[in-house]
Amino acid sequence: MAKVEPRTLPGFMELLPNEQILFDQIKQTIEDSYKTFGFLPIDTPIIELSEVLLAKAGGETEKQIYRFERGDTDLSLRFDLTVPLAKYVAKNYGNLSFPFRRYQIGKVYRGEKAQKGRYREFYQCDIDIIGDETLDIINDAELPSIIYFTFKKLGFDDFTIKINNRKILNGLYESIGQKDNSVEIMRIIDKIDKIGVQAVEEELKKLGISEDVIDKIISFIKIDGSSDEKIDKLEALKIENEVYRQGVRELKDVVKYVRMFGIPENNFTVDLTIARGLDYYTGTVYETFLNDYRELGSVCSGGRYENLAENYTDKKLPGVGVSIGLTRLFYKLNELNIIKADKKSISDILIIPMTENLQVPIKLATELRKLKVNTEIYLNNKKIKAKMKYANKLEIPYVIVIGDDEISSGKIKVKNMETGEEVQCDIDASKIKELI
Amino acid sequence: MAKVEPRTLPGFMELLPNEQILFDQIKQTIEDSYKTFGFLPIDTPIIELSEVLLAKAGGETEKQIYRFERGDTDLSLRFDLTVPLAKYVAKNYGNLSFPFRRYQIGKVYRGEKAQKGRYREFYQCDIDIIGDETLDIINDAELPSIIYFTFKKLGFDDFTIKINNRKILNGLYESIGQKDNSVEIMRIIDKIDKIGVQAVEEELKKLGISEDVIDKIISFIKIDGSSDEKIDKLEALKIENEVYRQGVRELKDVVKYVRMFGIPENNFTVDLTIARGLDYYTGTVYETFLNDYRELGSVCSGGRYENLAENYTDKKLPGVGVSIGLTRLFYKLNELNIIKADKKSISDILIIPMTENLQVPIKLATELRKLKVNTEIYLNNKKIKAKMKYANKLEIPYVIVIGDDEISSGKIKVKNMETGEEVQCDIDASKIKELI
Repeated sequence: MAKVEPRTLPGFMELLPNEQILFDQIKQTIEDSYKTFGFLPIDTPIIELSEVLLAKAGGETEKQIYRFERGDTDLSLRFDLTVPLAKYVAKNYGNLSFPFRRYQIGKVYRGEKAQKGRYREFYQCDIDIIGDETLDIINDAELPSIIYFTFKKLGFDDFTIKINNRKILNGLYESIGQKDNSVEIMRIIDKIDKIGVQAVEEELKKLGISEDVIDKIISFIKIDGSSDEKIDKLEALKIENEVYRQGVRELKDVVKYVRMFGIPENNFTVDLTIARGLDYYTGTVYETFLNDYRELGSVCSGGRYENLAENYTDKKLPGVGVSIGLTRLFYKLNELNIIKADKKSISDILIIPMTENLQVPIKLATELRKLKVNTEIYLNNKKIKAKMKYANKLEIPYVIVIGDDEISSGKIKVKNMETGEEVQCDIDASKIKELI
Repeated sequence: MAKVEPRTLPGFMELLPNEQILFDQIKQTIEDSYKTFGFLPIDTPIIELSEVLLAKAGGETEKQIYRFERGDTDLSLRFDLTVPLAKYVAKNYGNLSFPFRRYQIGKVYRGEKAQKGRYREFYQCDIDIIGDETLDIINDAELPSIIYFTFKKLGFDDFTIKINNRKILNGLYESIGQKDNSVEIMRIIDKIDKIGVQAVEEELKKLGISEDVIDKIISFIKIDGSSDEKIDKLEALKIENEVYRQGVRELKDVVKYVRMFGIPENNFTVDLTIARGLDYYTGTVYETFLNDYRELGSVCSGGRYENLAENYTDKKLPGVGVSIGLTRLFYKLNELNIIKADKKSISDILIIPMTENLQVPIKLATELRKLKVNTEIYLNNKKIKAKMKYANKLEIPYVIVIGDDEISSGKIKVKNMETGEEVQCDIDASKIKELI
């Protein structure tokens, strides 16, 4: 029979089981962390009507979308979890309680150019808080506290949540007559970490901006010091623009509340260069960096938007949210070998019968399972060596061999596969549970 | 601005948060149950090359597939989790340990005619055990024990796992000269519960089968009694066909081991009418029925197949597996209102600040979260009534209101939202945790 080569599409992550166990643990940690803050789960379809999904999209995003017809229906695969959230909230407005705090963890699809570490199918882990008409600024400080809690739970200590406010930038550009250029300017500034100050200046020149205005922009970006010092300097700048002033007030409030939420000083900072590429955000913006692994880029980003669902409803629904791009994060962390699984195997124990009498080993397995011990029993007829090799390859931490001698004596040995140590024990699930 | 109507495609389940909480609990229970038996997780792409995914498919299945081109690549969305498993095992053969025990829970896509309770996007929850060359018959008995454990965990007691063996049927048909008709005959017999004996007889007549052969088939199907009595009668039948004999031996072994795995007599039965529609299965087959809700049909089905990945590899990979169609099961159970969530809300407690001094309520929330209490703090400026209404709508079980009086006295009241009872307590996370 002719065979088809079994292969997976480039840009689609497919892990071996031991890696999958690790991936799932990270995903679970993120989900548990989101739940700790009382966020509600939603699960939206991967396929949506193109008309609904692309109500706003355009440009680069639209080109990347998996879009196709079925019958005469124009369909698209979701490319993020924010547009489905907007649809969901507009559709279910009357049945939701506001502020609506939701998390969603799911796969999204972007037909990007395939390259190492870039994925076409990837998990996003999103949280958003959506207000009805209004949403207090303190919510913008709760989100960094969730980022903080989450990355601590993931085992990181040295990370920085960078916080800025788009209104400060917008107000600044308005005040120096660069309002129309502001999105483009922010896009350029956003790259400062990658390309440096001089390259930023040159790109700004190409926009036709005069040197004295560029100087103002650069001196603004160069505002330095602690978060409080930066805010003081922002307040001291003689910019009489209401948007700017409001941005500074909001940023000051966010910093105040971020401290109240218990985020240590070395885990957050005001960074006036953070703007997020998207024109989507209208206020607070965040990026998060693992300081030992800056090459990863931002591992958790987001911000405040004034009107989530304007394409679907007249209701004004301001929100604030962040997202972790889990697939890429996992790829990088795994490549750098800096994450380890809490538990390397699913099974806590492997029972290996070396007897025709399976009654005893099966009964023990059943009893252990009732005590919530993940228990596998090796049911195929192999030599003991092959069975032990299986336990080793799966990194199952404990093994019990049960032969006729063990059955007649009522005693087994629980073998710790890491240390090689064996402890004798009755054939009794509770007693065995205590040993592992 | 022109609005797009926010809507979800027909046949795509999208739940409100309170239903989603329940759905997620059921999914988690199934996953935990699979892990209890030491199955390993895998996660395969939703999009695959059509050439790979459709290596075997044909007929009805192929028509239902979401298939499209991107660039010059012919892509399809997975329609089950078995074909991706076959691809995965063939592709990763050298890196897997056999028997390979994997679970996968994920969405699959079938463009079926949209109707109530039928889904185009739905979750399957699969477990399979794949052997390398051989796989002992006892594995066919472990699977019913996992079904049993899982449905018990889901809160059901009165369900029946029906077990049969395709070899018995194949051997029978061979012995009565109906081998070529056997797939068609089994398809007809499979419907006996729905359409009755007489309709089955009529459909068999239409196949051109003679009356005395139909009589043999029907009297075979009518073999009754306990599981043991049925096996005795099967053995007593004078059918000298080796396939038939092997099927009876296998069924007898499966029943013996099923008992060893501790499945009570009233939760399993030999049922000679079960054949599974698919020609895919070659030995043991299963269907599971909730006896109080027979109208749901089989809620967990599967069986033994001799060669999982024959389209991709020359390796012989026999396997046995079952699948739960979770989306449809959830829809039905929810419609019948026979499932309840263990926890109706994500948050265990809602803290409602009624003060400008947010330091104390935020600190308490942070402390509670550290103790793994899911804690939400109401951060928006609303009247107390609106805040309590929010707690009620989200069915959060406990509420603490913190105003200036509470802060100065250091005492709060923990309100049980179900009973209305209030208990006074210090502002101390550990003490509060004990009360909830």
